[in-house]
Amino acid sequence: MAIKTNPGNYFEDFRTGAQLVHAVPRTITEGDCALYIALTGDRYPLHCSAEYARSLGFQRETVNDLLVFHVVFGKTVNDVSLNAVANLGYAGLRFLAPVYPGDTLRSVSEVLGKKENASGQNGIVWVRTAGTNQRNEKVLEYCRWVMVNKRDAATPTGANDRPDVPAEVTPDALVVPSSLDMKRYEAWPSGGSAFFEDYSIGERIDHIDGMTIEEAEHAIATRLYQNTAKVHFDGHAAKSTRFGKRLIYGGHVISLARALAFNGLENALAILAWNGGTHSNPSFAGDTLYAYSEVLAKAELPGRPGLGALRMRMVAVKNADPVADAIPLKVEKDGKSSYHPNVVLDLDLWLLMPKRS
Amino acid sequence: MAIKTNPGNYFEDFRTGAQLVHAVPRTITEGDCALYIALTGDRYPLHCSAEYARSLGFQRETVNDLLVFHVVFGKTVNDVSLNAVANLGYAGLRFLAPVYPGDTLRSVSEVLGKKENASGQNGIVWVRTAGTNQRNEKVLEYCRWVMVNKRDAATPTGANDRPDVPAEVTPDALVVPSSLDMKRYEAWPSGGSAFFEDYSIGERIDHIDGMTIEEAEHAIATRLYQNTAKVHFDGHAAKSTRFGKRLIYGGHVISLARALAFNGLENALAILAWNGGTHSNPSFAGDTLYAYSEVLAKAELPGRPGLGALRMRMVAVKNADPVADAIPLKVEKDGKSSYHPNVVLDLDLWLLMPKRS
Amino acid sequence: MAIKTNPGNYFEDFRTGAQLVHAVPRTITEGDCALYIALTGDRYPLHCSAEYARSLGFQRETVNDLLVFHVVFGKTVNDVSLNAVANLGYAGLRFLAPVYPGDTLRSVSEVLGKKENASGQNGIVWVRTAGTNQRNEKVLEYCRWVMVNKRDAATPTGANDRPDVPAEVTPDALVVPSSLDMKRYEAWPSGGSAFFEDYSIGERIDHIDGMTIEEAEHAIATRLYQNTAKVHFDGHAAKSTRFGKRLIYGGHVISLARALAFNGLENALAILAWNGGTHSNPSFAGDTLYAYSEVLAKAELPGRPGLGALRMRMVAVKNADPVADAIPLKVEKDGKSSYHPNVVLDLDLWLLMPKRS
Repeated sequence: MAIKTNPGNYFEDFRTGAQLVHAVPRTITEGDCALYIALTGDRYPLHCSAEYARSLGFQRETVNDLLVFHVVFGKTVNDVSLNAVANLGYAGLRFLAPVYPGDTLRSVSEVLGKKENASGQNGIVWVRTAGTNQRNEKVLEYCRWVMVNKRDAATPTGANDRPDVPAEVTPDALVVPSSLDMKRYEAWPSGGSAFFEDYSIGERIDHIDGMTIEEAEHAIATRLYQNTAKVHFDGHAAKSTRFGKRLIYGGHVISLARALAFNGLENALAILAWNGGTHSNPSFAGDTLYAYSEVLAKAELPGRPGLGALRMRMVAVKNADPVADAIPLKVEKDGKSSYHPNVVLDLDLWLLMPKRS
Repeated sequence: MAIKTNPGNYFEDFRTGAQLVHAVPRTITEGDCALYIALTGDRYPLHCSAEYARSLGFQRETVNDLLVFHVVFGKTVNDVSLNAVANLGYAGLRFLAPVYPGDTLRSVSEVLGKKENASGQNGIVWVRTAGTNQRNEKVLEYCRWVMVNKRDAATPTGANDRPDVPAEVTPDALVVPSSLDMKRYEAWPSGGSAFFEDYSIGERIDHIDGMTIEEAEHAIATRLYQNTAKVHFDGHAAKSTRFGKRLIYGGHVISLARALAFNGLENALAILAWNGGTHSNPSFAGDTLYAYSEVLAKAELPGRPGLGALRMRMVAVKNADPVADAIPLKVEKDGKSSYHPNVVLDLDLWLLMPKRS
Repeated sequence: MAIKTNPGNYFEDFRTGAQLVHAVPRTITEGDCALYIALTGDRYPLHCSAEYARSLGFQRETVNDLLVFHVVFGKTVNDVSLNAVANLGYAGLRFLAPVYPGDTLRSVSEVLGKKENASGQNGIVWVRTAGTNQRNEKVLEYCRWVMVNKRDAATPTGANDRPDVPAEVTPDALVVPSSLDMKRYEAWPSGGSAFFEDYSIGERIDHIDGMTIEEAEHAIATRLYQNTAKVHFDGHAAKSTRFGKRLIYGGHVISLARALAFNGLENALAILAWNGGTHSNPSFAGDTLYAYSEVLAKAELPGRPGLGALRMRMVAVKNADPVADAIPLKVEKDGKSSYHPNVVLDLDLWLLMPKRS
């Protein structure tokens, strides 16, 4: 009898060019959206109010971009990263179409390349994942690379085909929802007073609020996304790891940072893209997250006169107020620069921001 | 560059007569209702069963009154009480129309008056808040007053316009849903055997059951309501407060007490109004709540022969069984009467109760 | 004034042949289904994807069998087991029709018999419970027996009518949803590669993954099901019990085991029946569950050529990896065989499994 449980793919199992059709298509419902608000504190009105969304040309409230990401990503874990040692990076992530409650999402990944590490213990695998809806329209795509254990450390594979991944998403590649119509845009639903013109390159916005994460909260969120990474759920096995406890899904940290960032970026209508991102340190239950954002660049969106794109670095810091406790992004140690131990996220993203005029 | 994050209004920022249009309109969904049941244990069948609700003339199951309250209230925090020292009271709260899943709620408050305290550190602000649906129909209104910090304690404002707030909601002001039709009323869906006639003024009903509150539970509930009060979420900052930990949103205590009160008040169809209420002591994660109710008054509802209104004092007690441990509502100390330290809620409300005949 | 709160039925209160119409009919919504996924990690695609469900002839995604069970069961607690000392067993449980979001469930139980224990302190009560939808179609039925305290231990009742309960559900009594159409069945949505033919009698499948349960999680789940058993909620009272803490609802353990069993039984379309089951040891917050399954029998389903039924023993083990730590099902002590203290569930069930051909 063959083993019927899925042990996950090892480095040797990935073949460059292969397509991985991920299991468990998922209809996103009003229930998922309510849970997303309850677990993250999200308040962006496009995802909260059917009336507001309709006033901007949408059919109804849209599913939060990051909830879409988590569901699409969650499906890939079983095939891509069950034996991953580390999530190394993201590139070229773009949201391509609005998702509504009732839409059914599925995920497919293509293996872009793989490269064995010098140690022989593991290697890096690059994939490009697409999330599609029930009409087979792409709603999300991104590249991701992970360090994956080898099944057999003693036998070199010679794998050495590192692919090119985009260094950034250029403004011309950003996709603004075609249905979005700014003619009836009002600011009261967001409560924000700042618009595209008000943000300056180099400006930093401290989002002030803090959010403590409980074990039940991140586990409920991560199960909602049907993400099967064992490190988030198995507290018994976690006792024998170097941390001695469960790790919080990095995506939950992104969601909390984005929700905290509502305070200062209220009018931001959507995340358009991620240029890249790093889970710079792990988070655990009991941690309190704070967030700040820096304006890296501003871009016009041709053909969309009432809107602009803000390129932002969104940083999450744990257990210390980034301002009062003056937490730097990076620290020098032995001549090497690395993230401050309290910095848990460094995400470079494009936001869609209404213009004042 | 102007500061873009909202630090909340200080005492000086309120102007009597001003209208505060609160951000983040919210479509209440089936997801919110399911979460409300899961977080509170609510069992009133009007909010659980579409069939039962239709048998009474409603379109479908209605949104729990208190979920409506929490959502309407949650929106006001950012403008009214982000810098509040204390929530002092409620008055004249009335539920005015049923809310259904799919309805979109917004909140607007009017500043009724303000009065600086003798200390000069802070003052009291009175507001009247209305919650409206997408047809601009009022579904809820209430007065609330809070003690708010001054931005500048050294400069007196001279504010001294304390408004009148209603001492009670008189029975003629109670609004019974016009669609409610008692012709097909049955008791089995609630399981209760007591009706309007069976409750006597002065009678006390001990609701027996206890409910322990976990940190994740109150935080999930309070985020669901998009209530942004920092004291419920930021465990890191809470370490430096006098409690050393996070506070539970007082509204969660009200919801739990109301859910516990199902045992003994099963046939109560709705909360019609609050005459007033006090969060008499704080609650924290790990606390177990018990509840009891006292019948304060009974009122006929003209034109609604099958229904009456019960005025009830609903009391929540923590970490002690109110009966077995004989917890009094108030205690005398140094000639002063104050709430027993285990009493966390004293709410005076009107319930809609079917008549036996 | 009569006591208005429900103290639950005592042994003396049950009358053989009596019908108990349980309170609180419940419309199952998308919100309940999302919460079920978030609380259990369930991934069976029939409950996740409207598209997949439609491809198999269903109207849309169906409500998870176990969510149906928990809701139907939850309603019975108030009348059947509020004063129960122990849940002794289940028999003859069958799922009879699919439930969809929007359906309204109610429960009715018949008292099958009762038998006083020799001690005189308590006795066993047998009930048969049926869950029905808004069209009065049975969706679930099962027998259950519980040990219930007597109100008056000093007065013997002489009750001694132990009923027959089915020792098993024979294959001819299994109900396959009539709408299920396998013509368009595909395996990618489940991700599983094993079918009916691939499972051998006697084979054991270790489901590998572990799931830690937090206090908030089981309490949220159990409130969602409106199960009112005090032992799950009242942490204050629990301090005085022999465990000193709250017990986890045994049904939550079943749900977690079933969700863990997705890894190795991905194609299983539904639970058709339970032959019997035992909550062999209690579970508490902080426990980590693992699960394994053994194939007890295989049965053809006449008239349903693409499908077969697998009779499985599903075992849940806590705080120990059943394989690595070699946890036996039972241990001998003083010449008596009893469940290993880490074994918390032993459930004998029939699964509906597609055939390869």
